[in-house]
Amino acid sequence: MSRAHIFNAGPAILPLEVLEQAQKELVDFAGTGMSIMEHSHRGKAYAAVHDEAVANISKLLGLTDDYQVLFLQGGASLQFSQIPLNLLPAGAVADYVNTGTWASKAIKEAKKVGQINILADTSKEIPTNMPDFDALPYTPGAAYVHITSNETIAGTQIKKFPKTEAPLIADMSSDILSRPFDITQFGAIYAGAQKNLGPSGVTLVVIRKDLIERAPETLPTMLQYRTQAKENSLYNTPPTFGIYILMLVSRWLLAKGGAAGIAAINEAKASKLYAAIDGSNGFYRGTAVPAFRSNMNVTWRLPTEDLEALFVKEAIANNMIGLKGHRSVGGIRASIYNACPMESIDALIAFMADFQKRNG
Amino acid sequence: MSRAHIFNAGPAILPLEVLEQAQKELVDFAGTGMSIMEHSHRGKAYAAVHDEAVANISKLLGLTDDYQVLFLQGGASLQFSQIPLNLLPAGAVADYVNTGTWASKAIKEAKKVGQINILADTSKEIPTNMPDFDALPYTPGAAYVHITSNETIAGTQIKKFPKTEAPLIADMSSDILSRPFDITQFGAIYAGAQKNLGPSGVTLVVIRKDLIERAPETLPTMLQYRTQAKENSLYNTPPTFGIYILMLVSRWLLAKGGAAGIAAINEAKASKLYAAIDGSNGFYRGTAVPAFRSNMNVTWRLPTEDLEALFVKEAIANNMIGLKGHRSVGGIRASIYNACPMESIDALIAFMADFQKRNG
Repeated sequence: MSRAHIFNAGPAILPLEVLEQAQKELVDFAGTGMSIMEHSHRGKAYAAVHDEAVANISKLLGLTDDYQVLFLQGGASLQFSQIPLNLLPAGAVADYVNTGTWASKAIKEAKKVGQINILADTSKEIPTNMPDFDALPYTPGAAYVHITSNETIAGTQIKKFPKTEAPLIADMSSDILSRPFDITQFGAIYAGAQKNLGPSGVTLVVIRKDLIERAPETLPTMLQYRTQAKENSLYNTPPTFGIYILMLVSRWLLAKGGAAGIAAINEAKASKLYAAIDGSNGFYRGTAVPAFRSNMNVTWRLPTEDLEALFVKEAIANNMIGLKGHRSVGGIRASIYNACPMESIDALIAFMADFQKRNG
Repeated sequence: MSRAHIFNAGPAILPLEVLEQAQKELVDFAGTGMSIMEHSHRGKAYAAVHDEAVANISKLLGLTDDYQVLFLQGGASLQFSQIPLNLLPAGAVADYVNTGTWASKAIKEAKKVGQINILADTSKEIPTNMPDFDALPYTPGAAYVHITSNETIAGTQIKKFPKTEAPLIADMSSDILSRPFDITQFGAIYAGAQKNLGPSGVTLVVIRKDLIERAPETLPTMLQYRTQAKENSLYNTPPTFGIYILMLVSRWLLAKGGAAGIAAINEAKASKLYAAIDGSNGFYRGTAVPAFRSNMNVTWRLPTEDLEALFVKEAIANNMIGLKGHRSVGGIRASIYNACPMESIDALIAFMADFQKRNG
């Protein structure tokens, strides 16, 4: 079987070079006679992997000493709780912006913990949309402001991050390290690894050090950021293989020119695909407002749901995987994360043109 | 490099056949043109892996319909909190038995949640020991009784599980599926995968279905057992690669004759190693009382700490990895989990004899 064109929303495509290296050394890592999966998380071989992962992520994000990198478990879904449990004390208020499915889930969990304000709600708008983040009624003295940088299902993406007085916290699961941004605008960012960073089962959290100590000591030890912060994410056994793959992906990303380098490639990929949608004389219709179109998750509709089903079916027959829109919204979605090569975009566009010719 | 003799306590040795199969199909899983890491957790290819993992674990543990298999994240360390958060309501009491480092950690977290009784504390005894579980003063009406089936650091193991009135809950991280036992004696068992089941980053929880619904709905969604129970552990993205390896290990274990088959092998391995220790005329001294000697983690001392350090150093030079005792207790520890072959036991015993000849 030749390599598929992978448009999965997550778990998602990984760089082929990364997979090939992992394959080569899966049974015998670096001449140690053991798999990286068999190495102790407290041994030298794994320590080198772990420390390189931290160093590469720090470099790619341009972190200052004010921030700490954590590798956690449980996905963004656990962070939805961990953020307020650590950072929203009784009597305080946190600001949330509801931009879609993922922001809604974060809000649902935060409400279990404390008091929150919804600054804006664009989650039900069609075409899918986001608010003007510079014009939101931020709460003076809020514990933090929570945003979702990219809505994987809606296909929308914040193009310019606001400067907020309260610590800005972003779920960046679906566009982490796809473009440069100024980390000093943020109190914390987090991301499940399974879109742009590696396999599922690792959650990257980058948090400003002064925020780490805000959690009550009564919180379960594993839910306090300070627990893993004190131990370089080695308080208990971390998901070593996932962090190893993440390290290889971070190396690959550095070789691509880091966040700025990959952003140029991502911009070229997304522009080409959106141009194909917009140039189809209405056969394909983008579902997000142009100002907030995501460069990671490109969403569109066809004239009928039957045609959408046929499109997905024929795409699979043409070795293009993962184009069915999320079950909650339907339509078509191409997730074109960092590792998705231009060849896959070109193949998709050629298929789209052919499909339209036959069905338009 | 030839394959190492791996005595790591966790992450630990995996069956070579499992690693070789994972290597073979790492880039192209089952002819799909994609890595298993790139497959959607909601797609057919991964679903087959996930469902086989559940089915194999159910078969290996002899589960009835009263129990559910969950694949979670966060390790046993998160279960230390999740168990009481779900199962210890206000006003109730849970019984705990403190048999060592891991039981102590479970107790520390449970105390944050509610009221507990310590039925016995052997955690400080030297030689390392466990109480008579049939003679403990169990609390009438307790919410549950928590035990640690095998203390990885102390090298002790419960040989016969008690029959308790309250649901019995066991941390089985370091001896899960190393021997048969009657699951119907238990309300729940849990285990980090990285010793007997697979790589780190997956936590196996098996829980009686009537207990799943006890958690307050106010608990963070990700911490309620019902959340993943309702969704076959697919509420959010699971650690797919770890579950895939666990599935391959479960296949390997079935081929070995299941829990009974592997138990016979484990008994033979451990007996041989303990006999070597006991037959050394006191040069090697086992650190656990014989009645509770673990078949998984074999712990012993040498006449001096200098000799212990030399032993570990020379062992490494002879391709034997992971023999240094846990930093909290010192000495020597050989973790001889399911996947550790008899050849490694034989190599270790030969090395021990040679070392004694030169240093005894």
